[in-house]
Amino acid sequence: MTISYCPQCAHPVDQIIPPGDNLHRSVCPQCQHVHYENPKVIVGCVAEWENKILLCRRAIAPRFGYWTLPAGFMENGESTAEGAYRETLEETCANVIIEQAFALINIPAINQVHVFHRGRLTSAHCAATSESLAARLYHASKIPWQDLAFESVRYCLLRYLDDKNKGQFGFHETVLQPF
Amino acid sequence: MTISYCPQCAHPVDQIIPPGDNLHRSVCPQCQHVHYENPKVIVGCVAEWENKILLCRRAIAPRFGYWTLPAGFMENGESTAEGAYRETLEETCANVIIEQAFALINIPAINQVHVFHRGRLTSAHCAATSESLAARLYHASKIPWQDLAFESVRYCLLRYLDDKNKGQFGFHETVLQPF
Repeated sequence: MTISYCPQCAHPVDQIIPPGDNLHRSVCPQCQHVHYENPKVIVGCVAEWENKILLCRRAIAPRFGYWTLPAGFMENGESTAEGAYRETLEETCANVIIEQAFALINIPAINQVHVFHRGRLTSAHCAATSESLAARLYHASKIPWQDLAFESVRYCLLRYLDDKNKGQFGFHETVLQPF
Repeated sequence: MTISYCPQCAHPVDQIIPPGDNLHRSVCPQCQHVHYENPKVIVGCVAEWENKILLCRRAIAPRFGYWTLPAGFMENGESTAEGAYRETLEETCANVIIEQAFALINIPAINQVHVFHRGRLTSAHCAATSESLAARLYHASKIPWQDLAFESVRYCLLRYLDDKNKGQFGFHETVLQPF
């Protein structure tokens, strides 16, 4: 997002390289406020209940109608695990015990870092929400691979199922394009 | 950072919960722009040259004069590994080959997520910069434990040296207080 006005004093900002910096920033010539824009963190989880994985079908853009792992923008004041718990509840009504971080996915083209944790559901309960047309538990053999919303979801599921077959979960990282 | 004016149209913003949301945001009543504030990612590395670890002594606040691992705010358009490479160059003049992600440190009290990678220096060259009073290669037995800048640095070094002793590097995560 390019900003036009200083959020501190409302003066129009300049796009300049501040002293001691080496990148253009939105800088206010009136109050000298520097407005930094940095990558955002997406937090989510690969959560199981009785050998099935929780997926939800997006009720919002982008990728409306496609299936995804519960995930969303991390908020101030929470950890990645707390964010993954919150997003899972908000998107699927499911209560999840968040476990180890499982995957780090960089998507520099859209300034995003995705952190996925593993998780265990505390019951089979999941349901549609304002953010999801449906929430469902999928056995590995039934995952809708052709209808997944994002490459990061595909990456997580492939690594997760591979590790599960091996009987040992690792930590995985990659750099992906947005879609 | 609380913002006072809309960065898109300069109108004073309201602190309200937008429709469909559940947190207060800075929302412009004139152009409806919602200004989100999210955690920032700090990227850095634990890099070795001939069994010694690269540390630098901070020339900037906070913790001026204390020793740290090379690390800093991740920028838009880069991956965590690219950010770790850039920060190491900027803070120590050292050229590092960035390897696997090694640690994920959540510091929710200050809205930060730290991602540290392992790294190998391509030579012994390192030097002071505008951000560092000094850069130096430390053998494990000589690390200035009493003069480390941040708890996250201490955590990384302890985990790194422990893994090195075991002969196998893992991935580590924790939640820390700021200092």
